[in-house]
Amino acid sequence: MSATSSESEGLVALPVPGVTVSAVEAGIRYADRLDLVALKFDQGTTAAAVFTRNAFCAAPVIVAREHLAACDSMPRLLLINTGNANAGTGAPGIAAARRSCEEAATLLGLSAHEVLPFSTGVIGEDLPLAPLVSALPTLFSALSPEHWLRAAHGIMTTDTRPKAGSRRFAANGRDYVLTGIAKGAGMLRPDMATMLAFLTTDAPIAPSVLDHLLRRAVEMSFHRITVDGDTSTNDAVLLAATGAGDGEVCEDPESELGRALGEALEALCLELAQGLVRDGEGASKFVEVDVRGGADERECLDVAFTIAHSPLVKTALFAGDPNWGRLLAAIGRAGLRDLDVNGVRILINDALIAEKGSRATSYDESEVAAFMQQSDLRVIVELGRGQADARVWTSDFSYDYVKINAEYRS
Amino acid sequence: MSATSSESEGLVALPVPGVTVSAVEAGIRYADRLDLVALKFDQGTTAAAVFTRNAFCAAPVIVAREHLAACDSMPRLLLINTGNANAGTGAPGIAAARRSCEEAATLLGLSAHEVLPFSTGVIGEDLPLAPLVSALPTLFSALSPEHWLRAAHGIMTTDTRPKAGSRRFAANGRDYVLTGIAKGAGMLRPDMATMLAFLTTDAPIAPSVLDHLLRRAVEMSFHRITVDGDTSTNDAVLLAATGAGDGEVCEDPESELGRALGEALEALCLELAQGLVRDGEGASKFVEVDVRGGADERECLDVAFTIAHSPLVKTALFAGDPNWGRLLAAIGRAGLRDLDVNGVRILINDALIAEKGSRATSYDESEVAAFMQQSDLRVIVELGRGQADARVWTSDFSYDYVKINAEYRS
Repeated sequence: MSATSSESEGLVALPVPGVTVSAVEAGIRYADRLDLVALKFDQGTTAAAVFTRNAFCAAPVIVAREHLAACDSMPRLLLINTGNANAGTGAPGIAAARRSCEEAATLLGLSAHEVLPFSTGVIGEDLPLAPLVSALPTLFSALSPEHWLRAAHGIMTTDTRPKAGSRRFAANGRDYVLTGIAKGAGMLRPDMATMLAFLTTDAPIAPSVLDHLLRRAVEMSFHRITVDGDTSTNDAVLLAATGAGDGEVCEDPESELGRALGEALEALCLELAQGLVRDGEGASKFVEVDVRGGADERECLDVAFTIAHSPLVKTALFAGDPNWGRLLAAIGRAGLRDLDVNGVRILINDALIAEKGSRATSYDESEVAAFMQQSDLRVIVELGRGQADARVWTSDFSYDYVKINAEYRS
Repeated sequence: MSATSSESEGLVALPVPGVTVSAVEAGIRYADRLDLVALKFDQGTTAAAVFTRNAFCAAPVIVAREHLAACDSMPRLLLINTGNANAGTGAPGIAAARRSCEEAATLLGLSAHEVLPFSTGVIGEDLPLAPLVSALPTLFSALSPEHWLRAAHGIMTTDTRPKAGSRRFAANGRDYVLTGIAKGAGMLRPDMATMLAFLTTDAPIAPSVLDHLLRRAVEMSFHRITVDGDTSTNDAVLLAATGAGDGEVCEDPESELGRALGEALEALCLELAQGLVRDGEGASKFVEVDVRGGADERECLDVAFTIAHSPLVKTALFAGDPNWGRLLAAIGRAGLRDLDVNGVRILINDALIAEKGSRATSYDESEVAAFMQQSDLRVIVELGRGQADARVWTSDFSYDYVKINAEYRS
C-alpha cells in the first residue's frame, strides 16, 4: 500500500506540471489504509467533469457540481475520501461535504468553492468529519508531483489493484502529458464503491473544450463498460488542464491541440475503463461485445448492452459455454424494429457460431468451447442492416459475484 | 409423474366441457418422461393467443400464429411437445412444425391449420419428428376431460412442480368454469424452457373478446413477473372458449359475461404467473415489488422492473439483507424525469426503511433483517408524485442461479 514512486506493478503515471498529489491514512473507516487523497492544481487550471446520472446522487456530487460552477471551472483542489460515500445521508451529508471543503480551503488559503469533494465507501452512514479534518495538514504537507500511484492506491476501496496511466502527445511543436487514475467499475461492491476517475494534463485548454473532449471520451469508454448494469450514486470523472505546458490556450476541440488531447484522452479513458472491467467483482472473463452492421449506433448499443447485461449470457461466459441460443435470444429482445433475424450472424472471436436463424454449418462446438476457456473473449454480432457499429466491454457472472454481493454487508 | 386425476399436490384442475386432454411419453429427448401433450377442443371453440415479443421467435410460434389466423381463431387441437424447442432451427424447423400439425390433423380428420403447435426444450437442435409422430395415436386415444394435471406435468421441462388451477364464474344466470395450466418463468433454464400457459373455458365468447380479455390479463400477470429479465423465443399464452356451457355468445368485454370471465381470468393468470416465479431457478425468495404514487403506470413499472432486474438487489434479497442503498440506487437510475428524491419512501413489508434521501430514523436493521429471512417479501416504493401504481413479482439471485445457468449445458 506504500506505492510512492511513479512506477509500480507495471503501471506508469507521469508527473503533470502544475499538479501535486498526496494520499494519507486518515482512518475514516479502517486503520492502516490510504483513504484520503488530494490533487492540487496551480492557479489558472481549468476543469470539466461528468457525474453520475443517478437521481439519488451523493452529497459530494451535489457539492462538487455546485463548486465547479461557482469557481468558473477553475478548481484548485480535489479532495477525495474513501471508506464513506456520504450518500443517502440527506441534508446533514451535504453540510458535511461543504464543511470538508471549507476546512481544506482555510488551510491552503483558497475559497471553499475552489475545492471539489469526492467520496466513495459505505452508503447511508454519516461522514466522520473529525478524522478527515485532522488528517488534512499531513495530507497537504505531503503533496508532491510524484505521488500519482500512491493516489491511485488511495482512491481504491475493494478494487484489487490500482489503475493509472499516462499518454504523451504533441501539438503546435510542443510536448504535453496526460495522466489519469481510476477506481471501481459500475457498482462494484456497491456499498463500498463507485466509479471515480481523475485525469490531468499540462496543456492549456479552455473549459468548454475540456468539457467537449471529456464528454466524448467518457461516452466511448466509461459509458461503454458494465459489470452488472447498476449505477453508483457517486460516479464522477474529472479532467483538469493546468496550462503549465505553455502555448496558446486551446479554444477549439478541432484545433491541432484539441485533436491531439482528444486522441490521448480517448485512449487513456478506454485503458482505464477496461482496467475497471478486468477488476470487476468476481470477474473471470473480460468480454468485448462488438455489434456491427446496425442502422445506427443507438441500436448497436441496445444490442450490445442487452447481451452484456443478460445474466444468462454472463453465466454462460463464466462457464466458457458457447451458448449461442442465449445470445440469439438477447439480440431478439433488444427492441430493434423489423429485425430480419435471417440476416444476423454471431461470431465468438473468429468462429462463426450462428447465421440464418440457426447454428452455422461450419460451427464446431468443441473447438469454440476450447478457446472460450481463455480469459479474453470477443462476441461479434453482425446485424446486416447498415453501416453503424458499437463496442462495449463487460465481465462474466460467477459464484464470486453472488458471494461478494450477498455477503458484503453480512 | 403419473398424475392422472384432476387433483394432486394440492392442485385442483376442473374439467371444462368441450375440452379433452392427454399426455404421453413420446421419448422426444428423454425416456420415461411425459413430453407430448394434446388439448382437443369441440367444434365451434374460439381462441386467442399472445406470443413472445422476441424477434428470434421459434418455428412453432411462427406456425401457430399463422394457423390461428388461417382457422379464423377456431383451432381444434393444441399439440405441445417438450424436450425440443424447435427454436434456432431455421427453415427446416418451420417445415417440421408444419409436418407435425399435418400428421395430427390426418389422424383426427381435421385441417392442418386447425392444429396449433407449441414446443419447449433444447434450442438449436432439429425437432425429432419420428418419435413425435409415432406417439400421436396413443396420445389421441387417451384424450379425456380428466387429464388436466397429467397435462400440467406433461408441459414441464425443468420446472420442479406442475402449475394448474381453476376458477368458477357466473353470468346471465349460468355457471361456467375456467381451467389453466402453465410452465416455466422467464427464461428459466433457458435452453430447456419457455413460458407456456393454456387456459380454457366453457363460456361462449367471440374471438375478439377473448383477445381483449387475454391481453389485459397477461399484461397484469405474465408480463409482470421476471426471474432474470430474459425472454424465451417460445413463450405463448392461449385462451380457448368452447361455448359448451351454453348461453348467448359474448361479443362485448364489458358485458356481464365478459366482465365475469375477465375477473376469473385475471385471478387465474396471476395465480399461475406467481407460481412460475415461486418455482424460478434457484429461487429462495418470492418478492412483490409494489410501486405507488407515480405520475403514471409506465413510470411505476420502470421503477418496479429496475428493482426486480437489479443483480445487486437480487443478491441482497438472497442474503436477506435490507440493503436500502441498492434499492435507492436502482430507483435513481430508473430514468424518471425530475424525480424529487426527498419525496421517495421505501418500505420492506410494513417497515419504513428510507425516506428524505436517507435511512429512516425509525429504521431498526436487526428487526428488518429478521423478517427478511422469510421466503415471501414485499418491497414498497412510494414515489410521492401521483396516483398511479404497479406491482411486479420476482425472485432472488442465488448461488443456485449461477450454478444452474453456468453448468446447464456442460
